[in-house]
Amino acid sequence: MAAVNSDAVQAAIPEGFLALEKRSGFLRNCGDFYVHEELPILAVRLQPHHLNYVRIAHGGFLATVADSAFGVVLRRLSVSQVPAITINLNVDYLGPVREGDWLEAHVEVLKTGGSFINASCLLKVGERLVLRANGVFTWWKGATPCT
Amino acid sequence: MAAVNSDAVQAAIPEGFLALEKRSGFLRNCGDFYVHEELPILAVRLQPHHLNYVRIAHGGFLATVADSAFGVVLRRLSVSQVPAITINLNVDYLGPVREGDWLEAHVEVLKTGGSFINASCLLKVGERLVLRANGVFTWWKGATPCT
Amino acid sequence: MAAVNSDAVQAAIPEGFLALEKRSGFLRNCGDFYVHEELPILAVRLQPHHLNYVRIAHGGFLATVADSAFGVVLRRLSVSQVPAITINLNVDYLGPVREGDWLEAHVEVLKTGGSFINASCLLKVGERLVLRANGVFTWWKGATPCT
Amino acid sequence: MAAVNSDAVQAAIPEGFLALEKRSGFLRNCGDFYVHEELPILAVRLQPHHLNYVRIAHGGFLATVADSAFGVVLRRLSVSQVPAITINLNVDYLGPVREGDWLEAHVEVLKTGGSFINASCLLKVGERLVLRANGVFTWWKGATPCT
Repeated sequence: MAAVNSDAVQAAIPEGFLALEKRSGFLRNCGDFYVHEELPILAVRLQPHHLNYVRIAHGGFLATVADSAFGVVLRRLSVSQVPAITINLNVDYLGPVREGDWLEAHVEVLKTGGSFINASCLLKVGERLVLRANGVFTWWKGATPCT
Repeated sequence: MAAVNSDAVQAAIPEGFLALEKRSGFLRNCGDFYVHEELPILAVRLQPHHLNYVRIAHGGFLATVADSAFGVVLRRLSVSQVPAITINLNVDYLGPVREGDWLEAHVEVLKTGGSFINASCLLKVGERLVLRANGVFTWWKGATPCT
Repeated sequence: MAAVNSDAVQAAIPEGFLALEKRSGFLRNCGDFYVHEELPILAVRLQPHHLNYVRIAHGGFLATVADSAFGVVLRRLSVSQVPAITINLNVDYLGPVREGDWLEAHVEVLKTGGSFINASCLLKVGERLVLRANGVFTWWKGATPCT
Repeated sequence: MAAVNSDAVQAAIPEGFLALEKRSGFLRNCGDFYVHEELPILAVRLQPHHLNYVRIAHGGFLATVADSAFGVVLRRLSVSQVPAITINLNVDYLGPVREGDWLEAHVEVLKTGGSFINASCLLKVGERLVLRANGVFTWWKGATPCT
């Protein structure tokens, strides 16, 4: 039996997904993330450095996927590219995610008001639901780095 | 001006904290974590690979710190070292955390029942409160790796 | 100008909704609730005793509508009519609800596992989204009253 | 066997608690609430109209107690008596509450920033913990009724 090598894993990216531009230190470290070119979906292929002690995806990593998916989708909505800052994040863990799984985070923005943005997110492996999240956000008022 | 080098950062660990044994792929990748030898506290010195695009700690990283702190403290409570699995994690972000900050996660276990464990967590930089989290957990029923 | 009388309010129940059987003391006191005969929807017409000090629906009342909608829909799923007990309830308030509004709680059950049930709920006035909730539940193991 | 009459129940109010001024329709309907004259505690003696089908406190009622406790304590903090509006409420149910129980909601305000207020709350019957809640709030910007 041949081992799955890293190149093969990275090659198997479904159509429509592009590598996420790696601006943030933490996301670069957690990667590799992919974003759908049209739909509000962030995705990642599970690798050993995403797992916990019992060899399923670490809860913190899954929360990171949800929070990052919200961030990516909300930034697309913002004409001025202002980042959204998370006020509250709530996550229900529904099932295990394992090495090699292609994990997709599907975001739905529920409300963009004056002060707050509300959004929900479902994480799926194929059709299997593995996490449900929602968040409350506000627009960042501090400085943003030059790009 | 001298750069802060990594050795200097790592050297500045407050008394009573020990390096966390790095079992998990994701935590090893996020590190370096420290755990208090007596109190229910997990801690980390913020480094560039913990930050987001606007140079504050990434929301996913802070959720990871909270979730890992729950995990470490709950495992201490378990005679048989069974890991706790997160069912629900809820996080309120209260203030920014920046590079160089010594971040402590103080856990309080509220209830350990037959099926569920409930715990709360406050993340602090010095006396400044930066995050409030709580979680619902259950004991892992699957296999655990040999150690 | 004629006052809207209580009979008129109660008469204006959209087609497909039936009065909820009033088993519980708290729900009877909060009422009057309606349940759709086919769809997973609980509804209520807002009355003065649902409002808070600034004349919008009380946050506790809206949480009650969400929690009760989960309960009604989950009981329908249970062959043996065992009640579901709430472990965690998370609610985002998205907009005000006012006296006279016909408020609908649309429930979606995400997962029914061995130990836990996960469900989401959207509260709407017409097409306007006013609340997003989700809950984690388990089946009640205690005695149930004879009926 | 003598029935516990309503007067007896109401008479058994611990020292330091005063009847809550009943401004809101929903709270008046849910009552009777008591507030500690110094400490940030809201309390209620459980009556039949607070219970659900299996004769324990309804989840929506307990969420109401938590949300109302936040409201009462935050209004005390506001010099201008501006009400706080709930953005997010998260509740973990830890144990049953039964008829006759004296239920206390102990509030801790974690942060009062420019736009948001964060607070936590523990509900107890004696020393027994029955619920943990937290909320995110903002100040109401609409009109308030004359008093």
